[in-house]
Amino acid sequence: MSGESAKKKPRTDEKYQLFYWPGIPGRGEPIRLALEEAGAPYDDVAYTKGVGAVTSLLKSGAHFAPPILRHGDLEISQLPNIMLYLGPKLKLVPESEESKYKINQYFLTIMDCQNEAHDVHHPISVALYYEDQKEPAKERAKDFREERIPKFFKHFESVLNANTKSNGEWLYGSELSYADLALFHLVDGLLYAFPRAVARILKDYPKLFDLHRRVKIRPRIASYLESERRPKFSNGLYRHYDELDAPKKDHDEAVPGEGGKQQQAD
Amino acid sequence: MSGESAKKKPRTDEKYQLFYWPGIPGRGEPIRLALEEAGAPYDDVAYTKGVGAVTSLLKSGAHFAPPILRHGDLEISQLPNIMLYLGPKLKLVPESEESKYKINQYFLTIMDCQNEAHDVHHPISVALYYEDQKEPAKERAKDFREERIPKFFKHFESVLNANTKSNGEWLYGSELSYADLALFHLVDGLLYAFPRAVARILKDYPKLFDLHRRVKIRPRIASYLESERRPKFSNGLYRHYDELDAPKKDHDEAVPGEGGKQQQAD
Repeated sequence: MSGESAKKKPRTDEKYQLFYWPGIPGRGEPIRLALEEAGAPYDDVAYTKGVGAVTSLLKSGAHFAPPILRHGDLEISQLPNIMLYLGPKLKLVPESEESKYKINQYFLTIMDCQNEAHDVHHPISVALYYEDQKEPAKERAKDFREERIPKFFKHFESVLNANTKSNGEWLYGSELSYADLALFHLVDGLLYAFPRAVARILKDYPKLFDLHRRVKIRPRIASYLESERRPKFSNGLYRHYDELDAPKKDHDEAVPGEGGKQQQAD
Repeated sequence: MSGESAKKKPRTDEKYQLFYWPGIPGRGEPIRLALEEAGAPYDDVAYTKGVGAVTSLLKSGAHFAPPILRHGDLEISQLPNIMLYLGPKLKLVPESEESKYKINQYFLTIMDCQNEAHDVHHPISVALYYEDQKEPAKERAKDFREERIPKFFKHFESVLNANTKSNGEWLYGSELSYADLALFHLVDGLLYAFPRAVARILKDYPKLFDLHRRVKIRPRIASYLESERRPKFSNGLYRHYDELDAPKKDHDEAVPGEGGKQQQAD
């Protein structure tokens, strides 16, 4: 195995190639955020070569779904797996053995919540339109807003509070990791999808609120979010359907932040 | 970081401690199968110390949900993360860098299918009983049986066929990995939950059919499956509700294997 291992070792000076659907942040976004924060050059092939490059690669049968990352001779899929590979290369995870597993653990939990956010608008089938599963979606949305989001937020707040090394600023250790970037994106996506519900409860989780705010204004992230490299939220994983958000209340005009803005745009 | 890393390094001679709910295979089972195949001593604490040991650990707030693995000073959760840690320790993953990422990739895809198998009987909320979401469950079950299972099976069959190193016997490389054990468990769980549907289609995926059969008769796995250490399928992640399985057909008496047996037991 060692001979083969040496031969197959990816050349780290090669550009990262991301294969993902164009037009939505989706499951490609935690990868883009990490590459952007690290200032690493990458090729988002759906934009540079067209979506045909993504569909062709899928036809090989080697991957179940995008995102797929190609780096040198290595070609891997599954978002948490891609982040596991990129984390140390982009210096977005500390060097200790424990850190690798704890950050992977937090990332997987963030992905669980992200997957549930997707399933809210597709509770029956990904092959059907939202319009064909609107009634079960309403029921699932209520459960997600009232039970699941608070359960996940409570957990992340508890992990942040317990991390004395960064005074509760980051999930693990003293520096930002790729899990913190994904947690920013989760909160950002939920604020887009459920602006009333999330703006109302986020203030009950001050460390999480603060992490979202601090990541958003990091120079490289802020610059990326304003660039045309950033796909805008639309009909992807995080979707905004007004009927799936919390009911409007009289005092909603007073709710500040993105939630308020989004709401007026509808 | 290196000083802390050395201090925190888990002592590998310590017994593995698994914290998971008792009474169901659930998300603990891929861990048990790996430990059993490797012949590694472990403590399934819900059985040895009672379920209180699991609920107490959850109250710490450090983990979102079981399974949780404790090994020396390391305590980690999230099933794919636990397997990533155990894989090399139990020699259930080859040593090359590529193998770690490919096997993690396949494992995560198996987990995606497993999670969907769970969501079939809980399409609206994990906080509600199945009986309170029976109608959407029926719709989701039809989609899962007819669209999703074949899509996943086709993918795994394609990966097996492409692996010339084991002549299509295993997902990656020339030996069984922890992903193969999880794939066995996925097929086994689906045969339990949807016996008619899965027995009908499994024969269309001969490599997958064969992998399931071969893992089941490996000496340590066969001995484990018959032991009282193995929680039986019941009202857990994989559940059998006759109304969620494929409709009965006249020629069903002729379908061999577990599917047929399960069907007569209803």
